[in-house]
Amino acid sequence: MIIIGELINTSREGVEPAVKERDKEFIQDLAKKQEEVGADYIDVNCGTLIKEEPEALEWLVKTVQEVVDVPLCIDSPNPEALKRGLEAYEHEKGAIINSITAEEERYEQILPLLQEYNASVVALAMDDSGMPKNADDRINVATKLVEALIDDGISMENIYVDPIVQPIGTDVKMGIEILNAIDTITDKYEDIHITCGLSNISHGLPMRRLLNQTYVVLGMSRGMDSAILDPLDEKIMSLAIAGDTLLGNDKYCGNYIKAAKSNKLTI
Amino acid sequence: MIIIGELINTSREGVEPAVKERDKEFIQDLAKKQEEVGADYIDVNCGTLIKEEPEALEWLVKTVQEVVDVPLCIDSPNPEALKRGLEAYEHEKGAIINSITAEEERYEQILPLLQEYNASVVALAMDDSGMPKNADDRINVATKLVEALIDDGISMENIYVDPIVQPIGTDVKMGIEILNAIDTITDKYEDIHITCGLSNISHGLPMRRLLNQTYVVLGMSRGMDSAILDPLDEKIMSLAIAGDTLLGNDKYCGNYIKAAKSNKLTI
Repeated sequence: MIIIGELINTSREGVEPAVKERDKEFIQDLAKKQEEVGADYIDVNCGTLIKEEPEALEWLVKTVQEVVDVPLCIDSPNPEALKRGLEAYEHEKGAIINSITAEEERYEQILPLLQEYNASVVALAMDDSGMPKNADDRINVATKLVEALIDDGISMENIYVDPIVQPIGTDVKMGIEILNAIDTITDKYEDIHITCGLSNISHGLPMRRLLNQTYVVLGMSRGMDSAILDPLDEKIMSLAIAGDTLLGNDKYCGNYIKAAKSNKLTI
Repeated sequence: MIIIGELINTSREGVEPAVKERDKEFIQDLAKKQEEVGADYIDVNCGTLIKEEPEALEWLVKTVQEVVDVPLCIDSPNPEALKRGLEAYEHEKGAIINSITAEEERYEQILPLLQEYNASVVALAMDDSGMPKNADDRINVATKLVEALIDDGISMENIYVDPIVQPIGTDVKMGIEILNAIDTITDKYEDIHITCGLSNISHGLPMRRLLNQTYVVLGMSRGMDSAILDPLDEKIMSLAIAGDTLLGNDKYCGNYIKAAKSNKLTI
């Protein structure tokens, strides 16, 4: 599993003031903690700042990079902010841009950034007709978007399709619709990545972490190989490691045994 | 999920002496505990006793029934022992016989018991050629066995196909082979149940409970709707409840919310 740590986001408690005050220590601590527990990418998002977003995103990229070795996921719908972030980004591995959609204007604005910065991209399964309602909507929009990206020279392994996770609290069939969409998309495009903003699934329900933990494993079973989540939840990270091993992605169970020996796993 | 509690088994520590000494209190305590935490069936197995097995199995059935309301899963390869157990069994809901296989002799011996006692049955995906090696073996043997049972008048919803879980510690591809078999079998037979002796998956590896917890969710995502497991593992039960809800089997998330409110769930 490719884990994208979601904690540096100004919509989360404490992060907006820290970014506004340019509190390096707070942000760097949050970045280091996520890397330590095994995040493969650190997401940076300061979308709540609106006008100040471009400058703040540049600062976030620089600030986080000073202390972690893992690459970043630069998260904004705003092309100007993304550009500032990407200009400041330095890593042998390309960043992930989070995100492009099949909305015509957004697609046209984000695509050049992908091409210029050799970045990977989260491809959200939505277009100008709005949010997807069921598995078919997700499959149709994802297909349209993936085909367009490939036509525009983006390679399959740089695309992270996000089927858009919506709460089961408002529609209990949502969980299975998304899983069925993941099934079809990964059958269609073998080398593609699937990621998602996992915690939306549990919005409005009690004990959200349990639902998030369960859903990451349900998704993995259908071919999801990445998730944007809170890596400080030890249980979710343990389930993801165990899931990779149980799905045959861990030769001789070496990674699992190593994680168990170094006390990284929790029962 | 249909949870079959596995703890009353003479191969588990403490159970064999309890059965030998006809220690009612020990066995009844183990039965009640499993029912309390939500087991839908209580498995009873005293296979290690060999010659004394038929008599002991009858005693187990009677002893457990005295204290629980849930039906039983009567577990033995020995037709004589099964018959004694079934004779002693009284419940409006038929027992599950654990198990029949596609081995010719065993099939012929167990089938009449299914018919006579209107029982459900665990149908193990193995035949006279031995244990299945991969997904295809499991699919082929399960198909042969299901078709035979249906031809012999057993209804689909009384069949629990067990794809035979083997340890990933000896073959890391085993987990995914079994999941792929579950996929195909549930596509083929919509009303069939899938169950398994879950804990075999983690044999020989550290932190077995974590692997078992993860594998139950991976299986559920592919259509497994039952498992033979230790229901006293609170986390595995929580994941199973959350999994059912996330798969759309829990109208308005009612069962999940109720479980959360009554402190049955653990993060």
